[in-house]
Amino acid sequence: MTTLDILKRAKAAAPSLSGLSTERKNGAIEAMAKELETSAEAILEANARDMDAAKGHISEVMLDRLRLSGDRIRAMAKGMRDVAKLPDPVGCVLESVTRPNGLKIEKVSVPLGVIAIIYESRPNVTSDAAVLAFKSGNVCVLRSGKEAWRSADAVTSALRRGLRRVGLCEDYVNLVEDTTRASANELMTATGYVDLLIPRGGAGLIRACVENATVPCLETGTGICHVYVDEFADLEKAVRIIVNAKTSRPSVCNAEEVCLVHQAVAARFLPMLKKALVDDRASGGRRPVELRLDPRAAGIIPGKAAGERDFDTEFLDYILAVGVVDSVEEAVAHIAAHSTRHSEAIVSENAENQEKFVRGVDSAAVYVNASTRFTDGGEFGLGCEMGISTQKLHARGPVGLRELTTYKYVVRGDGQVR
Amino acid sequence: MTTLDILKRAKAAAPSLSGLSTERKNGAIEAMAKELETSAEAILEANARDMDAAKGHISEVMLDRLRLSGDRIRAMAKGMRDVAKLPDPVGCVLESVTRPNGLKIEKVSVPLGVIAIIYESRPNVTSDAAVLAFKSGNVCVLRSGKEAWRSADAVTSALRRGLRRVGLCEDYVNLVEDTTRASANELMTATGYVDLLIPRGGAGLIRACVENATVPCLETGTGICHVYVDEFADLEKAVRIIVNAKTSRPSVCNAEEVCLVHQAVAARFLPMLKKALVDDRASGGRRPVELRLDPRAAGIIPGKAAGERDFDTEFLDYILAVGVVDSVEEAVAHIAAHSTRHSEAIVSENAENQEKFVRGVDSAAVYVNASTRFTDGGEFGLGCEMGISTQKLHARGPVGLRELTTYKYVVRGDGQVR
Repeated sequence: MTTLDILKRAKAAAPSLSGLSTERKNGAIEAMAKELETSAEAILEANARDMDAAKGHISEVMLDRLRLSGDRIRAMAKGMRDVAKLPDPVGCVLESVTRPNGLKIEKVSVPLGVIAIIYESRPNVTSDAAVLAFKSGNVCVLRSGKEAWRSADAVTSALRRGLRRVGLCEDYVNLVEDTTRASANELMTATGYVDLLIPRGGAGLIRACVENATVPCLETGTGICHVYVDEFADLEKAVRIIVNAKTSRPSVCNAEEVCLVHQAVAARFLPMLKKALVDDRASGGRRPVELRLDPRAAGIIPGKAAGERDFDTEFLDYILAVGVVDSVEEAVAHIAAHSTRHSEAIVSENAENQEKFVRGVDSAAVYVNASTRFTDGGEFGLGCEMGISTQKLHARGPVGLRELTTYKYVVRGDGQVR
Repeated sequence: MTTLDILKRAKAAAPSLSGLSTERKNGAIEAMAKELETSAEAILEANARDMDAAKGHISEVMLDRLRLSGDRIRAMAKGMRDVAKLPDPVGCVLESVTRPNGLKIEKVSVPLGVIAIIYESRPNVTSDAAVLAFKSGNVCVLRSGKEAWRSADAVTSALRRGLRRVGLCEDYVNLVEDTTRASANELMTATGYVDLLIPRGGAGLIRACVENATVPCLETGTGICHVYVDEFADLEKAVRIIVNAKTSRPSVCNAEEVCLVHQAVAARFLPMLKKALVDDRASGGRRPVELRLDPRAAGIIPGKAAGERDFDTEFLDYILAVGVVDSVEEAVAHIAAHSTRHSEAIVSENAENQEKFVRGVDSAAVYVNASTRFTDGGEFGLGCEMGISTQKLHARGPVGLRELTTYKYVVRGDGQVR
């Protein structure tokens, strides 16, 4: 089927999905999860063919992302069931007012309609994105990366069988067949068919979508996250937070990329930081973090000199740019100039400086004495997420079920005129 | 000053405005309103020069939009003071949760930053847009139409004097000096400088912004609004609603453009409609509404045959397209295919059909037994509005102060790591 045909079917299916009861949706999610499990063999077979075709063409890291197993499929099914347990974000009366003229105005949450998701080589994104879209009453049009297409197709087929099994329209979940660049461009410009486009993947994909999309697009992901160690920081606490923010999972968007240290504590703190990130890790047989130092930091500890772009790079690796600043104001100004407005933290025991940082930093999540790694739908109590929005319109930070809805005003009267 | 210089100043000013207290903002609004009044003479003089230059080049309607008077300036000042009285949308804790690990997460409303507004020939939009942006903590960059630039400049100068008078930065309110197409394009593509672009004007301007903007843009305005007269309608009520929706102010976006009538009542209702919109108005010396009829309606009452585009046109005039449908479902389907998702109404005493319409119609405002003319910030109780959003992301329907803000998550801990 052509991408346009799929879009037409998706659009035609949207109204009936938007009116489904919570019970029917949850029943369908259970049926989809079960089909996923009973189709494990076929999915693994498709995945094996993806892996064979990809070997030699993509890196080991990418291959690992692509790989499915019985456990991973069970985890995907469990993930779907977890979403079934979350509250239905559709049909909530968000506000209600009766006006002096007797008009009763309700602001009611409704699905967006059709959500297109362009992703890369993780086959689990297929069921993950599909269930979030479905639970929030949206039809999804999935566009998987070429490497993972057979796996994605097997997963999608299972989900569609689940929908049919409970008597629902299988076009609530769709996978684009064309995996060339053309289909991505088609989704980006499908005005009238796509109500929201979400790119899930690397910075290149996101940039391409944001720059080229003429349909509404949600910018997710890129995180150049900062931790600022204030002159009034508890330095032990600062080390603990930075070790976590930098090394617990360097490849994710909420990992720290830049450390700023107040000059008053730099001489004491930087050696502690180097010990924790470099020396202790090396002696423990783990990969040491490569420190890239601005000139003032380099005057205190050994390390590589930071290059021109090192304070503007999402390393996603065991690399940390380190700079020394003279004040919390300078830290805030540096962050304004260099961050991607994802997550930033201050470590300080001083309430005034905490407040200056919290007010001054314009990012989706601003932390006081905690790791940036908490910017996550699950950690925020949303139960799940479609990604982390770094834009300001519509949704900021973790995009959960509620952020996949819009609202409409329902106004009931008895003949009122103006 | 070049547009880029103005944008740079606006961006630099944004952080200090975002932290202003409600009291300081309201005091500044009063000062700006007062300066507007005391500068009336200079503003009227600038307006007279705009009028002189425009005469012969633009229509009488446009000239009337351009014209200021002492009364209109006083009304502008009063409009500003009314906004001062509204609740401050910034700094509200929208949600708050303490997680099991002790992290306290607050979702706090914050300004967007810099809002650019491109408008046309109404000089009152200058103070109107400026005060809404200011009260919501946003710096505004105004781009007036060429015809109204001298008036807009005089108004902006007064507002900036008001800001200086209370010791605030005058760059909170800015007017672009260049009125060529270049400056509009510059605003549309000012990534990193403009957090939100709002076009206020005709369909052409809005389309140009939506299609060309690479900065976030709020689509406002175009309204092809429908009123559906159900088979179970109170026909007297339907006439009253349609007379109001069509004729109380045909030039605005919430005016009705299309009437759909159920076939079961068409033979009774259409003559009533024609009497009210055509005959009674003509005999009362008012301009009759031109009815453009689909073939079935034309079989019942006299009128012009509807042309191919008449069910897809925002007339903004004394013109109404009229069609006959077989069911509420057909009405919903027609609206899905032809409306701009602004405002639609059903007139019906039947709860089931009301519900089908309310659920099925995917527009910003859906009315039961009331006029579409109520889609308005004031009528909805928001106190004011920057326009009516017809998009689904971020804001739908009237864009009040709250819709000019975003939020950030403030997360306070005591050394938590993940």
